[in-house]
Amino acid sequence: MRKRRYVYMFEEGNAGKKVLLGGKGANLAEMTRLGFPVPPGFTVSTEACREYFKGEETLHEDIKEDIRRGVQELEARTGKRLGGSVKPLLLSVRSGAYFSMPGMMDTILNLGLNDTTARALAEETGDFSFAMDCYRRFLQMYGDVVFHLEPFYFERILDETCKTYGCGKLQELPPEGWEQIIDRYKQVVAEEKEGKFPQDPIEQLFRAVEAVFASWNNPRAVVYRRLNKIPDDLGTAVNIQSMVFGNLGKESGTGVAFTRNPSTGEKELYGEFLFNAQGEDVVAGARTPLPIDSLWEKMPVVYEQLVRTCEKLEEHYGDMQDVEFTVEKGTLYLLQTRAGKRTAGAAVKIAVELVQEGKCSREEALMRVESSQLVQLLHKRIEPNAYLHALARGLPASPGAASGKTVFDANKAEQMALEGEKVVLVRAETTPDDIHGIVASQGVLTSRGGMTSHAAVVARGMGKPCVSGCEAARIMAAEGWFQLEEEIIYEGEIITLDGTTGYVYRGEAPLIYPELSPEFQTLLCWADELRVLGVRANADTPADARKAKDFGAEGIGLCRTEHMFMETDRLPVVQEMILSDTEKERQQSLEKLLPMQQGDFEQILGEMQGLPTTIRLLDPPLHEFLPNLEELMVEIALMEEQKGDPELLAVKKSLLNKIRALNEFNPMLGHRGCRLGLVFPEIYRMQVRAICLAVISLGKRGIEVEPEIMIPLVGHFRELQLIREIVEDEINGVKQDADTEFNYTIGTMIELPRACITAGEIANYADFFSFGTNDLTQTVFGFSRDDAEGKFLPHYVQQKILPENPFMVLDREGVGWLMSQAVSSGRSGKPGLKMGICGEHGGDPGSIDFCQQLGLDYVSCSPFRVPIARLAAAQAVLKERGAEEGAGSQV
Amino acid sequence: MRKRRYVYMFEEGNAGKKVLLGGKGANLAEMTRLGFPVPPGFTVSTEACREYFKGEETLHEDIKEDIRRGVQELEARTGKRLGGSVKPLLLSVRSGAYFSMPGMMDTILNLGLNDTTARALAEETGDFSFAMDCYRRFLQMYGDVVFHLEPFYFERILDETCKTYGCGKLQELPPEGWEQIIDRYKQVVAEEKEGKFPQDPIEQLFRAVEAVFASWNNPRAVVYRRLNKIPDDLGTAVNIQSMVFGNLGKESGTGVAFTRNPSTGEKELYGEFLFNAQGEDVVAGARTPLPIDSLWEKMPVVYEQLVRTCEKLEEHYGDMQDVEFTVEKGTLYLLQTRAGKRTAGAAVKIAVELVQEGKCSREEALMRVESSQLVQLLHKRIEPNAYLHALARGLPASPGAASGKTVFDANKAEQMALEGEKVVLVRAETTPDDIHGIVASQGVLTSRGGMTSHAAVVARGMGKPCVSGCEAARIMAAEGWFQLEEEIIYEGEIITLDGTTGYVYRGEAPLIYPELSPEFQTLLCWADELRVLGVRANADTPADARKAKDFGAEGIGLCRTEHMFMETDRLPVVQEMILSDTEKERQQSLEKLLPMQQGDFEQILGEMQGLPTTIRLLDPPLHEFLPNLEELMVEIALMEEQKGDPELLAVKKSLLNKIRALNEFNPMLGHRGCRLGLVFPEIYRMQVRAICLAVISLGKRGIEVEPEIMIPLVGHFRELQLIREIVEDEINGVKQDADTEFNYTIGTMIELPRACITAGEIANYADFFSFGTNDLTQTVFGFSRDDAEGKFLPHYVQQKILPENPFMVLDREGVGWLMSQAVSSGRSGKPGLKMGICGEHGGDPGSIDFCQQLGLDYVSCSPFRVPIARLAAAQAVLKERGAEEGAGSQV
Repeated sequence: MRKRRYVYMFEEGNAGKKVLLGGKGANLAEMTRLGFPVPPGFTVSTEACREYFKGEETLHEDIKEDIRRGVQELEARTGKRLGGSVKPLLLSVRSGAYFSMPGMMDTILNLGLNDTTARALAEETGDFSFAMDCYRRFLQMYGDVVFHLEPFYFERILDETCKTYGCGKLQELPPEGWEQIIDRYKQVVAEEKEGKFPQDPIEQLFRAVEAVFASWNNPRAVVYRRLNKIPDDLGTAVNIQSMVFGNLGKESGTGVAFTRNPSTGEKELYGEFLFNAQGEDVVAGARTPLPIDSLWEKMPVVYEQLVRTCEKLEEHYGDMQDVEFTVEKGTLYLLQTRAGKRTAGAAVKIAVELVQEGKCSREEALMRVESSQLVQLLHKRIEPNAYLHALARGLPASPGAASGKTVFDANKAEQMALEGEKVVLVRAETTPDDIHGIVASQGVLTSRGGMTSHAAVVARGMGKPCVSGCEAARIMAAEGWFQLEEEIIYEGEIITLDGTTGYVYRGEAPLIYPELSPEFQTLLCWADELRVLGVRANADTPADARKAKDFGAEGIGLCRTEHMFMETDRLPVVQEMILSDTEKERQQSLEKLLPMQQGDFEQILGEMQGLPTTIRLLDPPLHEFLPNLEELMVEIALMEEQKGDPELLAVKKSLLNKIRALNEFNPMLGHRGCRLGLVFPEIYRMQVRAICLAVISLGKRGIEVEPEIMIPLVGHFRELQLIREIVEDEINGVKQDADTEFNYTIGTMIELPRACITAGEIANYADFFSFGTNDLTQTVFGFSRDDAEGKFLPHYVQQKILPENPFMVLDREGVGWLMSQAVSSGRSGKPGLKMGICGEHGGDPGSIDFCQQLGLDYVSCSPFRVPIARLAAAQAVLKERGAEEGAGSQV
Repeated sequence: MRKRRYVYMFEEGNAGKKVLLGGKGANLAEMTRLGFPVPPGFTVSTEACREYFKGEETLHEDIKEDIRRGVQELEARTGKRLGGSVKPLLLSVRSGAYFSMPGMMDTILNLGLNDTTARALAEETGDFSFAMDCYRRFLQMYGDVVFHLEPFYFERILDETCKTYGCGKLQELPPEGWEQIIDRYKQVVAEEKEGKFPQDPIEQLFRAVEAVFASWNNPRAVVYRRLNKIPDDLGTAVNIQSMVFGNLGKESGTGVAFTRNPSTGEKELYGEFLFNAQGEDVVAGARTPLPIDSLWEKMPVVYEQLVRTCEKLEEHYGDMQDVEFTVEKGTLYLLQTRAGKRTAGAAVKIAVELVQEGKCSREEALMRVESSQLVQLLHKRIEPNAYLHALARGLPASPGAASGKTVFDANKAEQMALEGEKVVLVRAETTPDDIHGIVASQGVLTSRGGMTSHAAVVARGMGKPCVSGCEAARIMAAEGWFQLEEEIIYEGEIITLDGTTGYVYRGEAPLIYPELSPEFQTLLCWADELRVLGVRANADTPADARKAKDFGAEGIGLCRTEHMFMETDRLPVVQEMILSDTEKERQQSLEKLLPMQQGDFEQILGEMQGLPTTIRLLDPPLHEFLPNLEELMVEIALMEEQKGDPELLAVKKSLLNKIRALNEFNPMLGHRGCRLGLVFPEIYRMQVRAICLAVISLGKRGIEVEPEIMIPLVGHFRELQLIREIVEDEINGVKQDADTEFNYTIGTMIELPRACITAGEIANYADFFSFGTNDLTQTVFGFSRDDAEGKFLPHYVQQKILPENPFMVLDREGVGWLMSQAVSSGRSGKPGLKMGICGEHGGDPGSIDFCQQLGLDYVSCSPFRVPIARLAAAQAVLKERGAEEGAGSQV
């Protein structure tokens, strides 16, 4: 009757079935198929999860029936029986979605234990304590996951019972102690929750599967998906697997192995092992595990087997693997394999080396490095010559350096970050509940946990510096301070972390940006060969221009001139110019500014050595260069009160009047951009003259420059038409005066909705377009970025009113739609009109992908994002090819 | 060889050839064709003018040839010869464009006079003084128009010569005096300009035609065209006509007659006459003419002939005519006829009465009243019970009342208006150079000139109050004051004009709006029968709602709720609500506001008696309701300085911090509109509850209301989706509590570019759209209206960077394009989705026309513009029909 199947034995799946079986299930199936030692089991599909959420959030009968059948098959395969009084079958129940969400959803181990089977387990293993420990662990996990009981209830019972029997360790408890624990555990469940703990193992299993499904929507999973842009409607699969025990004595244990070093990318087996422990103990970070070498020392045969297995897995998948395994009395079992998370540095090194080893293609390698993750490689480090006194050292868990105010609480970290503070989160260990705090912090310091602890994994994923397991740290969060070796640091005091070395310093350290590694250079060369989009940088200073060139920028897409006006030696002259009463006075001030501007342009253009450079004429409203209105008002009020010098007072008042006259209600929509150039053409003329003189002067030094002059904030073609006339008139004047020739182009920012709509007309007067998506996003949404990001935008993203912050990820539907209008109408009359983007989106991989689709000529981003843009542009080409080849079939 | 003709004899044209011959030329031809007494002549076409501007701004040979031929024909027809020593042909050379531009371009009379012909004229008329007076007038006019010589040079000679000969009047001069004047006049031309005065009449004529063409681009003509939206590239025709003389003694004169009273619309011959004067003397206003009745007294036969002629002209044209005529020694000549300018009141009365007299159709009548001109009828008048002391009385030249600061100079008037001052321009007389000052003023007062003087005509055209010819006024502009009878009024003091009565008052008078005349009501009824667009009003108070209904509004398209929050009794509660630290505190304040809001809604909805009413939930950012930040800063600084009460200081400082936290850089793009409703849903809930309670309460009084709840500033469908959920939840709550039912709709403003782009998605959650074109214009252009109109927009309009102020006339190309996107995508999924406009453009006739084209359901405008909108909506239908019938052929 029904067509759907909800349960697949591992033998039935393979790595290609991730949508149906989740990543973990598909890989367990793949390993089973390839003959690796995987404990037998089956997967309840993601479809079952979606059914679960469609219905009343209980398993419907078809699913239960399939699970029962799966259990029967497992019993047949293992010769054990669920709930059996001899050879009882015990199960692990683990989540596994399409995208890995480590630690976000729930897991239950040792399922199948009840009063009967626990006793059978004790007999079978001959270890009563072990069996009872398994039982009480199961009860606690089940209580936590199914009944949402705090671990605290159970831990208290453990402590009390140990005290009663005068035991330091659980292992020393007499049998009656264990029985008391189990009784009281069951009582907790019965008291706190209406339903008693179900003794029927199949009932246990159904409720466990339901609980794992439900955990798909727990708050931390929801936050994780939002952060990682994972769709909410995928659902998770559940993997049900025969238990193996890492806690069956010294010959047992559990571990995690990476086929290459996930921090550095070095080709070496890397990982950790915890003897006599169950799987979850490693990830939780509660016990600090040993390096993987310890396994080699104690169980060399198992170690060798592990090494060979890891090699085969990497060979098979063509990528670095993260393998979870358990050793039960000297026998190796694989519990999971997946592409290993890695730092960006490692990702680059591994990708390049895998190509060199012939294990994957260049294209695969390029697609495998997540371009947004590269931010890590461009992360700051501490200036090598800085004189610093290290307070302590922990594990170098996530590279990069960061400074910030000490804070002990995730909520507070978020709050302070919203207020614009840089913070460093300091905690004993982090849990998935702390994610928002890590997001908000510059870096994380923990006193416990290893390189694969929660804090370390999450921080690496986010590219934030992390020092973990810094045992010298004694954190007194409630008292508002912590101790590092001998020193006390209060909440709010600044510390610096170096996640590359593990050192922690007091105060703020000077930070610098790193060089690119040779592997990185190689990868970017491959990217350059593939990509179609040009990559330029936004640079306003010679230093930025140099950095941009070092990082491979092919030109400057946006050189803002306002920062030049802000420099301390200029500002007084600029203010004098703005406050001029007559055009003649203004002209005099502008003449003083001319040689300074010429010098600016000569330096930047000289640095770029003839690479294309787009110089934008003055954009901000003039009042931005004047003293603060409010402060001046207060100053005048006080002077009046104190009967200060009347002459000075008069000067101040006249200044106040002028500032008032220039003041605006909405400066973003005010008298700025080309509107300035039209009302005060003499300002633009001065800037154009400075550009021309710089070009001529560089020409004499043998540097040929063809400046691109960009007019901001055009909304109507007449604006550009008139300014173009002014600019060309000035250029012709300079050419005539100097009796020389040079080429130039004049273009415009497309940063207003009206510019997009009338791009066809504007194109008649433009040699190029540059999309200013920052301002365009502001006007399309009606969002003032200055206000929105501090006020309602966080709420909007949190409540999923908007999928993303549109200032970070380009809004394709609104802003993007207008851009595509502008591209097509701009080019309809002028085919091949050069177009680029110089908003911040130019450095965002997703937005770069969109720019490729739009057919732009180049993206321009901050110098430090140039390598990211180079890679993202190559990936955009590969995605386009993939789409053309109908990549839909790959999922 | 050449196909073009540049010259047409009057006999060759007709009234349909306005494009080619200009309005004056076409009507002179029409009258000639119909046998009216028009002095013979020909027209140099507008095509010749465009050729003139295309070339080097000289007449090319083909045009000259045609003119020569025209002159020959004229010579043949009149039996006179240009430059002839007997019976010399004298010519008037007058401009005449497609659109009438009174006084804007140049005219030369008596052309053809030189030393020889002047003598011949003297002999022919037997009046040496007359001939010499004509000659010197010609020299002065020619000097002015062709050589741009100031009249001053000539007037000085006149004065000096009169003194030399001891004459009080020119007429008393002996012949040698006249000869001296003519010699010195010719000398002035020779000295001041390189070329001498040309004695060759055909040369005179060519240069005169060139000068008239050139005057198309003189500054006042350019300003006039900008104001009246006349295209710059039409060019003017030149009419060359055999001279007739109104200055040939007592039996001669010149006058202007309207076939109906242009101020009131009464059916009576109305006009002015100046005995023994040449044509230009009337329009210039230099001599105050007599009422037309004076002609009846002195020359009853001519008067009767004029009356009959006027009747025939009105009958022929089907519209009220403005006729210029000259009487030469008892013979009537018509120099021009055209549709007469009229006040809006007259326009309405004339249109309705012409229909009633069977002289035109209803549709013609509706098209003939310019809807934007109706503003005049809705003009303020002085509150009848106001106690006022009239200072003086002048002519009631343009109806309506106005108050403003006295200013004596057009430039200063413009300057002060830009600074937000209301001004009244006070001048001896105005000239075309004063137009920008009249535009900027509330009204105009002149001490000289009649009802057809420049000031009167221009003010009527603009619908501004004007009192002209107020001879009691003695204006001492240089000293900064003027005298009215006994009283002195300084520049900057406020006066009030009543252009309906002619009275002038000191100080500011209370002004009220008028009722609609019966004819107006009739016209609007005809309009209502024709129009398709609904007309609603924007009304926030019961008084506004009542006014709107009186003016024929069919509902309220926008009821803003923020003004209710601003009322003095509410504001403290609103502030308390905003400053609440917790949601609970906020809730308490909101509960206090609830009954007040309910009362507001009950009153407005009650006033509308079930007509549809759209209530917009709170829109402005909350800080708009708080005290001014700057003032508070100053207050605190002073308190600190004076060591004021520390407790109060702490309160103020805490208030300051809250205001600071809410303060925004760009409030227009800030935390407002639905963003408020999403972050503080309790505010919207309170408002919705108040609406519901008002509806229920009105229902009990038998008034059935179906409220339309409007959500502002939606840019993403999720916003509307979520707010809709909140609003419906609240509505259902109230319904349940009250155990009652009522209908409602929920819609949204479309006022952001993103809303237009994604209107299809938004429509899924909206029962109606209302275009908020004010905000849409702000974001599409990136213009903050508050800033732009005071800063760069006037410059933009003046420099023709933009054709119009887009806040007054809808920008069809940008804003309109997005609107049409929104209409089509909004209705693609929801055919028939109700759509209206509630921006200020909803009251602008041109924009209403566009709304008709877009297919909107209604426009909503300020109550006082409702009648305008009703007429404009009917005209939009007629225009559409005209366009469908291919009205292109009419031009």
